[in-house]
Amino acid sequence: MLSRILIVVFVGGALGLGQVPSAPPPPGVPAPSNAPNAQYPRINPDSSVTFRIRADDAKSVRITTLGPYEMVRGEDGFWTVTTKPLASGFYYYAVNVDGFTTTDPGSQAFFGYNRYGSAVEVPGPESDFFAPHDVPHGTVRQVWYYSKATGASGSWRRVFVYTPPGYDDNRNTRYPVLYLQHGAGENETSWTNQGHANFILDNAIAAGKIKPMIIVNENGLPPAGVLSARGDAAPGARGRGGAMIGNRFAEFDAVVSKDLVPFIDRTFRTLARREQRALAGLSMGGAQTLRIGMNHPELFAWLGLFSPAIGNLDPATDYDGKLADGAAINRSLRLLWIGIGREDSLFAGVKASHERLEQAGVKHVWAETDGAHVWTVWRKYLVDFGSQLFR
Amino acid sequence: MLSRILIVVFVGGALGLGQVPSAPPPPGVPAPSNAPNAQYPRINPDSSVTFRIRADDAKSVRITTLGPYEMVRGEDGFWTVTTKPLASGFYYYAVNVDGFTTTDPGSQAFFGYNRYGSAVEVPGPESDFFAPHDVPHGTVRQVWYYSKATGASGSWRRVFVYTPPGYDDNRNTRYPVLYLQHGAGENETSWTNQGHANFILDNAIAAGKIKPMIIVNENGLPPAGVLSARGDAAPGARGRGGAMIGNRFAEFDAVVSKDLVPFIDRTFRTLARREQRALAGLSMGGAQTLRIGMNHPELFAWLGLFSPAIGNLDPATDYDGKLADGAAINRSLRLLWIGIGREDSLFAGVKASHERLEQAGVKHVWAETDGAHVWTVWRKYLVDFGSQLFR
Repeated sequence: MLSRILIVVFVGGALGLGQVPSAPPPPGVPAPSNAPNAQYPRINPDSSVTFRIRADDAKSVRITTLGPYEMVRGEDGFWTVTTKPLASGFYYYAVNVDGFTTTDPGSQAFFGYNRYGSAVEVPGPESDFFAPHDVPHGTVRQVWYYSKATGASGSWRRVFVYTPPGYDDNRNTRYPVLYLQHGAGENETSWTNQGHANFILDNAIAAGKIKPMIIVNENGLPPAGVLSARGDAAPGARGRGGAMIGNRFAEFDAVVSKDLVPFIDRTFRTLARREQRALAGLSMGGAQTLRIGMNHPELFAWLGLFSPAIGNLDPATDYDGKLADGAAINRSLRLLWIGIGREDSLFAGVKASHERLEQAGVKHVWAETDGAHVWTVWRKYLVDFGSQLFR
Repeated sequence: MLSRILIVVFVGGALGLGQVPSAPPPPGVPAPSNAPNAQYPRINPDSSVTFRIRADDAKSVRITTLGPYEMVRGEDGFWTVTTKPLASGFYYYAVNVDGFTTTDPGSQAFFGYNRYGSAVEVPGPESDFFAPHDVPHGTVRQVWYYSKATGASGSWRRVFVYTPPGYDDNRNTRYPVLYLQHGAGENETSWTNQGHANFILDNAIAAGKIKPMIIVNENGLPPAGVLSARGDAAPGARGRGGAMIGNRFAEFDAVVSKDLVPFIDRTFRTLARREQRALAGLSMGGAQTLRIGMNHPELFAWLGLFSPAIGNLDPATDYDGKLADGAAINRSLRLLWIGIGREDSLFAGVKASHERLEQAGVKHVWAETDGAHVWTVWRKYLVDFGSQLFR
């Protein structure tokens, strides 16, 4: 019975999972963002969340990033806490045990804050549009390509590519492409893992709300070591650009324009022209979208800025003053979409940017919505922005 | 300058990464398995590994799963430890802080032990065959399909599919398929993330050692809740089977034979016959391979058992006695491959199974190798087994 002994050891948790309750679980259900079989975190009927952690010798355990919530040790040795009722949505969180900030073993791993961390999805009526339904499903592909624009001699890079339902069968169909970027501290996996962009597209395409398209997610922030080793400055930068972040953006601009777009057009059945190519991103990715969009009108005719990190734009000087000529921008772009939630800490700055763009005569869609600086909002923006693309 | 402020907050680590050393780093290099930019764990010139953790108020911090190694608090407040020199390879590990067992923020997340945990890759001369090289690269696809064999009314399941270089271009070429399974506590991501099966195939195909093929990775262990809710028993089980693990295997057998294989043959350009279809797995996946292989000779003509959890087989009773008729098995199978390392705790039991199969006249390749029950070994087995397939 060696096989059974082995399996029990592995499944039972040689690492001391501490997830199996000793009594029947309370009301509520495991969060959909949990690791397989993990009973906690648990979504209660009032949409509060109960966390439960085993830390036998700890003096202090708390939930951070979300909250913070101090946890209390029970008689069974487990530390627990229940949050206030939460609006439906996606919440990053961390566990801090005696000063060590790390993950909850009950959660799946999501890359955010430059680490693989924890998150809890609180379901609600609005969760339906990103859930897998009985509709045709697209494919999320990991593909590798060589970029000469990174490091001293280039490097292999991984990119996530969503191909819509029917892509493999409709051999004569070519598709428009949306290049869709994450925020700072996230990466090419985030629009799939946190955002469920693939299910959002599957559902919206089935409903006829979004045209079938390819979506490409790259890693927008190359390692700092590569950049400091090169020591280059953003070429010709006036206004924004020139600093460390400017250099990182310049490097990503080169990755996208010199290597990524040609690779995608060479590898997939794309409609390889600017009118069939969009660029969008959230937070830092929104700032990159505006910068790369301004630098490469030959590549992108549709730009989407989701809660973008572009407060208090100065159209006269930022991006080499390209935004100062509203008429030229309006001739070039088919859509400039800017959305942000009123509870977002960036709201005031982005609203000021919106007003200055209006003053400069730069046409754009301004979407002032509910919500904070969270994935809950960006998933909806993908539907709003996506439904306007390539029309 | 709101954008820069935001980015610095995100990148600098709102969660208190504790990875940035305050002095120049010591000799050695960050492990290739680290999260982006993480300086620790660090591979030293003698192939020892230095771990470094911030836990300000902890009484006790240690590395477990690997080791254990007690960490020591330095004057800078960081806890560190250096292991003995390690053989090159892939090592799962965990961090225990005052009784809380969790991840190291410096590591990528690997699904093992039923959780997203940490691991360190110690490079060596043998790391080359699974590294990305300047050869044509295949694609790793996440695809979703509906399986009626799981739960009360079925469920959407995700499967990872490797398509070899040229798959999208060679529209008239059909390919054989290897169904390749993980061990207990791992899942459909493991052969890509831990095993680098895609790079192994890219390199071996380029070298002409392995024929171009499709590889499919499913999740071999459905949630226990689903199974206990159904309460079914393994049908007609004699010998192995009938217990909890037997039920789980029966459910996975149904997923593979009724839903997965037809879906793959419907969706990809496969050579849809048993002579062009192989099944293999490691540890628990090796036991599942033998069971599903014995139940479905109509599906698979090639079987690979990598360090399988099948100690002390009794060919007369196990798997309904199907292994007792060596001549029938030999007519049916093109290859039965069994490999295990001499340092594996399962070695004695699997060697006994090998000897009993010989006594029963069941032809098989017996690969007795160096190594323990680790991914380091299974990556090599994929090359050894894969190079014999479909010849």
